[in-house]
Amino acid sequence: MTQPAHLHPDRLFPSAEPARGIARELYAEVADLPLICPHGHTDPSWFAENGRFSNPAALFLTPDHYVLRMLRSRGLSYDDLGVPRKDGKPVAEGRAAWRLLAANYHLFAGTPSKTWVDHSLHWAFGITDELSPETADRIYDTIDAALATPELLPHAILDRARVEVIATTEFALDPLVHHQKMESAGTIGRVRTTYRPDDVTDPSRPAIVDNLKRFGELTGEDITRWEGLINAHRKRREYFRRFGAVATDHGVPTANTADLPLVEKQALLDRILAGRHDANDAELFRAQMLTEMALLSVDDGMVMQIHAGSRRNTDPLLFTERGPDLGADIPGTTDYVGGLKALLSRCGNEPNLRIIMFVLDETTYARELAPMAGYWPSLMIGPPWWFHDSPQGIRRYLDQVVETAGFYNLAGFNDDTRALLSIPARHDVWRREVAGFLANWVAEHRLTRSSASDIARHLSYQAAKDAYRIS
Amino acid sequence: MTQPAHLHPDRLFPSAEPARGIARELYAEVADLPLICPHGHTDPSWFAENGRFSNPAALFLTPDHYVLRMLRSRGLSYDDLGVPRKDGKPVAEGRAAWRLLAANYHLFAGTPSKTWVDHSLHWAFGITDELSPETADRIYDTIDAALATPELLPHAILDRARVEVIATTEFALDPLVHHQKMESAGTIGRVRTTYRPDDVTDPSRPAIVDNLKRFGELTGEDITRWEGLINAHRKRREYFRRFGAVATDHGVPTANTADLPLVEKQALLDRILAGRHDANDAELFRAQMLTEMALLSVDDGMVMQIHAGSRRNTDPLLFTERGPDLGADIPGTTDYVGGLKALLSRCGNEPNLRIIMFVLDETTYARELAPMAGYWPSLMIGPPWWFHDSPQGIRRYLDQVVETAGFYNLAGFNDDTRALLSIPARHDVWRREVAGFLANWVAEHRLTRSSASDIARHLSYQAAKDAYRIS
Amino acid sequence: MTQPAHLHPDRLFPSAEPARGIARELYAEVADLPLICPHGHTDPSWFAENGRFSNPAALFLTPDHYVLRMLRSRGLSYDDLGVPRKDGKPVAEGRAAWRLLAANYHLFAGTPSKTWVDHSLHWAFGITDELSPETADRIYDTIDAALATPELLPHAILDRARVEVIATTEFALDPLVHHQKMESAGTIGRVRTTYRPDDVTDPSRPAIVDNLKRFGELTGEDITRWEGLINAHRKRREYFRRFGAVATDHGVPTANTADLPLVEKQALLDRILAGRHDANDAELFRAQMLTEMALLSVDDGMVMQIHAGSRRNTDPLLFTERGPDLGADIPGTTDYVGGLKALLSRCGNEPNLRIIMFVLDETTYARELAPMAGYWPSLMIGPPWWFHDSPQGIRRYLDQVVETAGFYNLAGFNDDTRALLSIPARHDVWRREVAGFLANWVAEHRLTRSSASDIARHLSYQAAKDAYRIS
Repeated sequence: MTQPAHLHPDRLFPSAEPARGIARELYAEVADLPLICPHGHTDPSWFAENGRFSNPAALFLTPDHYVLRMLRSRGLSYDDLGVPRKDGKPVAEGRAAWRLLAANYHLFAGTPSKTWVDHSLHWAFGITDELSPETADRIYDTIDAALATPELLPHAILDRARVEVIATTEFALDPLVHHQKMESAGTIGRVRTTYRPDDVTDPSRPAIVDNLKRFGELTGEDITRWEGLINAHRKRREYFRRFGAVATDHGVPTANTADLPLVEKQALLDRILAGRHDANDAELFRAQMLTEMALLSVDDGMVMQIHAGSRRNTDPLLFTERGPDLGADIPGTTDYVGGLKALLSRCGNEPNLRIIMFVLDETTYARELAPMAGYWPSLMIGPPWWFHDSPQGIRRYLDQVVETAGFYNLAGFNDDTRALLSIPARHDVWRREVAGFLANWVAEHRLTRSSASDIARHLSYQAAKDAYRIS
Repeated sequence: MTQPAHLHPDRLFPSAEPARGIARELYAEVADLPLICPHGHTDPSWFAENGRFSNPAALFLTPDHYVLRMLRSRGLSYDDLGVPRKDGKPVAEGRAAWRLLAANYHLFAGTPSKTWVDHSLHWAFGITDELSPETADRIYDTIDAALATPELLPHAILDRARVEVIATTEFALDPLVHHQKMESAGTIGRVRTTYRPDDVTDPSRPAIVDNLKRFGELTGEDITRWEGLINAHRKRREYFRRFGAVATDHGVPTANTADLPLVEKQALLDRILAGRHDANDAELFRAQMLTEMALLSVDDGMVMQIHAGSRRNTDPLLFTERGPDLGADIPGTTDYVGGLKALLSRCGNEPNLRIIMFVLDETTYARELAPMAGYWPSLMIGPPWWFHDSPQGIRRYLDQVVETAGFYNLAGFNDDTRALLSIPARHDVWRREVAGFLANWVAEHRLTRSSASDIARHLSYQAAKDAYRIS
Repeated sequence: MTQPAHLHPDRLFPSAEPARGIARELYAEVADLPLICPHGHTDPSWFAENGRFSNPAALFLTPDHYVLRMLRSRGLSYDDLGVPRKDGKPVAEGRAAWRLLAANYHLFAGTPSKTWVDHSLHWAFGITDELSPETADRIYDTIDAALATPELLPHAILDRARVEVIATTEFALDPLVHHQKMESAGTIGRVRTTYRPDDVTDPSRPAIVDNLKRFGELTGEDITRWEGLINAHRKRREYFRRFGAVATDHGVPTANTADLPLVEKQALLDRILAGRHDANDAELFRAQMLTEMALLSVDDGMVMQIHAGSRRNTDPLLFTERGPDLGADIPGTTDYVGGLKALLSRCGNEPNLRIIMFVLDETTYARELAPMAGYWPSLMIGPPWWFHDSPQGIRRYLDQVVETAGFYNLAGFNDDTRALLSIPARHDVWRREVAGFLANWVAEHRLTRSSASDIARHLSYQAAKDAYRIS
């Protein structure tokens, strides 16, 4: 059966020969490699419970802020799209919301969201029709029926997608109950947690004082003393490692780091615990904690991920009505050279330190990130993140980082998704783009055909394992 | 007759198949659509008087800061190019200046200026020779003779160019005498004004206090009170709408907005009227006025255009000798996320609000503008502006905005020109580039052929009508 | 004999027809033009002494911070790579270091370093094998043997590379002993010095006070008075011109300039000589000195080069252990519009002034540099610098500057290298990229074939001579 146009087997490859033919070959070499998913936001309860997904809208629409925000931007309301409200007022049901998505699916022309949805509908449900007002109900029914089958249970999806490793992300205070269950079931290893201590490192969170107190109780450390606070992290990181964690993750508005004397660190902590800190204190605390986390990584070998540069919740109305992570986070400029200076001066040459930088300010790729990763043994560049995890985003990324950082200072691919079914789609786009990029360079006689094969395999699979120290 | 190389029918299309053939087809579908020109700086007296243009240099050289600045940058003097001086000293006459342009026309290789001039010479005058020292006089004479014919009168040019709608831009204090004449003649609708109140919103203008006083007199409002000032705008906007205005326009050095309490707004106004404001006050006043304009747009439905990021008059000598708009305005970095925060928090979700952002800092395309336009229902992205209204500029723009904002959050094309004859040339470049961009994506199987047709037509014609609410 | 893949004669050209064929033709027209090398960091003793190079590692590895930093970034130690230590402790010898490079040569896939090394091995030594663990010793021995032959002496290399002019770079206090020797030998003209007064203009240097005192002694001027300091520069510039200098060079962290009243300049100098200056004073002094250098250039016609935007020595450990220029300098954001305002307002329209800007912040290409160079007669844009002197870097540069600045506001090419053998390789990459860029535009019918030839020749050869006023 021939594929319809939107699922063409050559999609995303260079359109002219000889590059197209080379891309086809390179892609064929990597298309079926297992998936390494070292950073993402899937729900650990899926893997602990292995229960069925509720309905198509809950799978493709309401958890996907990429899709929601586009529809909103063209005037559709989140009520009509079924996005829950804090006040509990009713919002649209699944099928009605799904029809709205279908009626407006042309808005997604050229977006990665469409690529992911198209791929998922085909990959998971065998659907080759494009979503449209005419096909909306038929596709909805097809998905709904399939969700009741064993083939669509979470572990079956992991199997079919050849997921070798997948990491979830949990806050420091998370009890990891789902991972405990997985430990008993023997699935830790394939599924892993990640230590994301933003809940106890970001003083801009209203609950910070309570969180720090609970952090002390949970670890039996006196978090009112700086040494105790650090010890609490040390213990909690160890606890997370029991559940497979190989990495920590830090979501920060800037890349600023600090390296203060102990007396200043203690005074800063005192102000925060007393609720007397201002925005500068909050920034300074986050900055100091990044350095502390790096020092703990030097000790325990956990890979440190820094996701910097998002200005969160820029729409106060949305936040009040429905909460975070619904599309109103927007990137800003980020200074990596100045920001990371304190941390790198302190421990950037430590052989055991590994930091993976994720970037929303593409201007830093060639100007800062590639030169830094091409110098510091501790620094690697993560794959294009968020809005930039897209065909053009990947092209701009490779264009701007490779010549200075080389291919081997890249951390491979992360899908970084909340949408389980988009995982194979996202890895597929990455592999196609890597194949296309390398094919262009082979066709320009900048890489030999055999080193292109090596690099394609590396970036599709091994780089992520190596970067995250997954053995 | 075959076209000479510089007017090749395939110009700007991808050079390799299959993309080239697809681009040809897409272009053929849109090449002859009418022109929507919702933002520009043509002289309304042209359309009110329909008189003849004086001479070739006055048409192609002296009003075109793109052309002037390039010649100046290579050492030619504005005196020799015929640019009027404030002190009234003589400058070169038309033909001498024209010969200088011709003698240096090789400097324009690869620039959009050359594309526009070449296209205009051919389109308006049937000239297929390239401008050069050898052809200078012949071309000058051909143009000069043609300018005396009815085919080169302003309305005939609009007809031939299939201009369906064209907007001029007038300051708030402008009496709109030319538009009044057009109203009598029944040509308002095809020609429209635009409300650009920089003369009464920008305290860095030396005449600001006088301007505000005249604004009060003109509207019968007490502009010493904040409410009166806003009322004056409300009335003046209504007056502009009588002459076809569908939009306002705001030329600001930054994208900063503010949302102050009334008492602070009044105090700020008091300082400005007393001549006691500093640069911070000026910035704050502009910032607050942007929010006020947005609130008025919520009421009256006028589309708000923000042209942010130009540092004006960076050469004090030029400004002293000859005045503004002669090539010494240079872009700077612009912060849209932080800048627009106050305005968007206040009214960004209002269904009646529409803001079109024009950008000189391309780093914000993917980092800020596309994510913002892909979220806020009130925000659209204007076409590449000024230095970026060029083939490469359009490619960078589409590359960086489409994946996150989609095609349907774009406002189509604006020619934004003072040069009447460049209007069809500029739209032609846009349509060729859109066709080429879409063709590449069709050839990479990222868009279906039929959705590419839809998008090409939309971006060439309907998007501008929709964005500006032109019915 | 056919070339191996990594030395393919079509390398870097567009891979599809018709652009590839056009690129081949254009390249053939410029490939053998003489080399103009108006800015670089080769060692003048090489040309004064014409002695043999010591060994392969000393030629290709230890002086090349591009190569060193990449190896370091993947965990290799500078000790093992033979980089000398300040404490004199032993480091690896040449052959051992060379083997390490060979064993890790895959890390350089896709980097300009590999292009330069591959080209140099072939061009200078006839080596067509790729460097690898298997070929390491054989290649080492081949090079080592060749270094003993007359063909590999510095002047023979210049001859073979068709170097017409090459400039070295010396600090203001440098006695120019090697150039004195060359003057006696009659080789000044082909080899020239460049006046780089950072040693007496940058107060962040610990030795600044001593340096200024020596500067006074050297010139017989009273450098404690501002006028004397400027006179000292005037005399020293004249001295450098005796040894062929046509240009000055200024390495500055920002592009900031100042134009202070004399009393403030004197007070600033007083603080510096008293050792009482802070970081702001240092920045202000550098800023003022840039304007002073421009004013001196107006007088003496020396071309002023500004290399702005590098944050130097970001790794304190490296600096302490081994010193500067070993890979830890990282670019930062740079504001050219605001930064150059004082200087350009003072003398930007002076016909005798020429400033060539070198840029590490690519975001300024289209936003600031091209608009500025396309306006100011005194400003030209230097070629892509440092990390951006690479195929993709050159493509981004041409993409972003040409449409606004034109081809004729570009200063041609600089190799800017410390590595003599990389000079022909670097010019070759530039010429290939220029040919490829122009070929694409010819294939898109944006340039005529004959103007592409003119521009290719200009950018490959004449532009540098013109920009640097080399007759």
